[in-house]
Amino acid sequence: MTHDTNEHARAAMGLVVGTTETATIEGISAAGADPEAMAHTPAADAELIAYGDVLEAPAVPVSPSGCPTPALVTRAVRDLVGFDLVTIDAGLGVETAAPTVSLGDRAGNDIRKPTAVPDAASLWERGRRYGRRLPADRLVLAESVPGGTTTALAVSEALGVDLSVSSSLPENPIDRKRAVVTAALATSGYSPGELAGQPREALAAVGDPVLAVLAGTAAGALESETDLLLAGGTQQLAVVGLLRAAGIDQPVSVATTPFIAEDPSANVREAAERLGVEVLVTDPGFDRESGTVFERYRAGEAKEGAGMGGALATAAREDVSMERVRTRIATRYEHL
Amino acid sequence: MTHDTNEHARAAMGLVVGTTETATIEGISAAGADPEAMAHTPAADAELIAYGDVLEAPAVPVSPSGCPTPALVTRAVRDLVGFDLVTIDAGLGVETAAPTVSLGDRAGNDIRKPTAVPDAASLWERGRRYGRRLPADRLVLAESVPGGTTTALAVSEALGVDLSVSSSLPENPIDRKRAVVTAALATSGYSPGELAGQPREALAAVGDPVLAVLAGTAAGALESETDLLLAGGTQQLAVVGLLRAAGIDQPVSVATTPFIAEDPSANVREAAERLGVEVLVTDPGFDRESGTVFERYRAGEAKEGAGMGGALATAAREDVSMERVRTRIATRYEHL
Repeated sequence: MTHDTNEHARAAMGLVVGTTETATIEGISAAGADPEAMAHTPAADAELIAYGDVLEAPAVPVSPSGCPTPALVTRAVRDLVGFDLVTIDAGLGVETAAPTVSLGDRAGNDIRKPTAVPDAASLWERGRRYGRRLPADRLVLAESVPGGTTTALAVSEALGVDLSVSSSLPENPIDRKRAVVTAALATSGYSPGELAGQPREALAAVGDPVLAVLAGTAAGALESETDLLLAGGTQQLAVVGLLRAAGIDQPVSVATTPFIAEDPSANVREAAERLGVEVLVTDPGFDRESGTVFERYRAGEAKEGAGMGGALATAAREDVSMERVRTRIATRYEHL
Repeated sequence: MTHDTNEHARAAMGLVVGTTETATIEGISAAGADPEAMAHTPAADAELIAYGDVLEAPAVPVSPSGCPTPALVTRAVRDLVGFDLVTIDAGLGVETAAPTVSLGDRAGNDIRKPTAVPDAASLWERGRRYGRRLPADRLVLAESVPGGTTTALAVSEALGVDLSVSSSLPENPIDRKRAVVTAALATSGYSPGELAGQPREALAAVGDPVLAVLAGTAAGALESETDLLLAGGTQQLAVVGLLRAAGIDQPVSVATTPFIAEDPSANVREAAERLGVEVLVTDPGFDRESGTVFERYRAGEAKEGAGMGGALATAAREDVSMERVRTRIATRYEHL
């Protein structure tokens, strides 16, 4: 594997995890069977990818209809490729048995409060310092934060970046999200686009701790010329919007799944073009399989998250066939 | 590598790190250039094995005479074998950029104080819970704690286990250590052997947090029938003494280096036999190379620690030649 054939090129995934009260707003996220379970989703994702199973977390996250977390796919790829993993805690709010680098220590507030992330600037800076020093040759930055697409939308609105967002629900509750975002900007006292060029202020007003750490870590990794791949959907486009707002103009790639790339409610390709982002889509070929996981994803659930698109891109890069990935996903799913 | 040929058998190293004020007693440890540097040694070892370099820690640990930490060897093997790593924080006392599972949060007291580890029973229990749930098929448990051989000697004395101990110094300051141990038992109010069968009490009185977490994690791993290898020298024999005192009679293996196994001041093989432990010695063939690292180790410095013996055993098990290991050590050393 990579370690052996090329001892110097180390691929690593940085999984940034955290929570925001925003996730508890009814109807905006499917990242957990219910609000109680959702609070544990990022920690459970981190444990699943680190160990192949949950330890402290009460259960492997599933949506209300039984669709398993995309972290299952990320872990299945890790079984095959063996990439290094660093879980970065941006503010989990619960105990976890996953090994973490702790950069934050509190959940984000509901973005409809005046301030969502009081320490956004410090989280960005801690991320930047960490990203700059991390000696990976290739870094895949991923995230797990329920409610994250809503905060991504809010931050982008504040920055004046046009970003339609995707959803972990098959029917994207986009009107619900827009209403939350409108309320969020109003209570923070900003009109759309008023925080153009002020990424830390936008994060503090209507962001979440994971976005702040992601953007900071990405900025640091780019500073030290690490080969960077942002893994995810619209949240990672929001990260690019934040980087651009900070005056960072380097080329950036986003790896995502076809479930996001082809989501008609979120025009990822157009938004990516505006931001000067290369979008890497890896098709895992779920249409060739039957079984709950493959069917739920085909029906538009979950779609992406917890590094799924980045893991699939890594598998493709390491010449691991998608057939092997699918077989491994099925085995992992049965095991649960 | 292992991930690819056998997707189900995952080898993992659990590196337990922490500190004890005992290390600041003059002349008992070489795990750092001076007392200030020594306080950072376990965190630096953890970062070095996790990332291949230090991030937060001020420098890669070296002895006063310039011998690099055995963590360098562990990392060199990890470059070649790519085993999973979990760093378990038993009480580092300093910030680290290494991803950690935090089971403890304070340094141990100087063992000459009445109580060395007030929360020893809780550390043992947290380790046990973690070790029981950790889904590794093969777990190599390692340690980094300056002053650890002195606390190991003290705990063994309290338990009435005959254990001569080794040292990271070429001339083992055994008389100095024995004087510290005698003072430690006296202030705690115990005579040698008085805590036979009471491992948690012995740890609380004269142990360190790393020993408590190691013993607990080992106990948990044995409960869940994980294939367990204790990596290290006399400290790991003390761990076995603690397990035996807790009534755990399962066969246990200790992987160590020839520098420990052949240390005339510490009769490891005899102590191992008394405890019913299989000792696995892997010779890295340092006598075939010139250069600082190899010469310092041949002169009896450092000897073992931070998983060195366990890493060498893992390399041998994965059919990675010691020649490749030595070449990689030399490259890593130049890189620093």
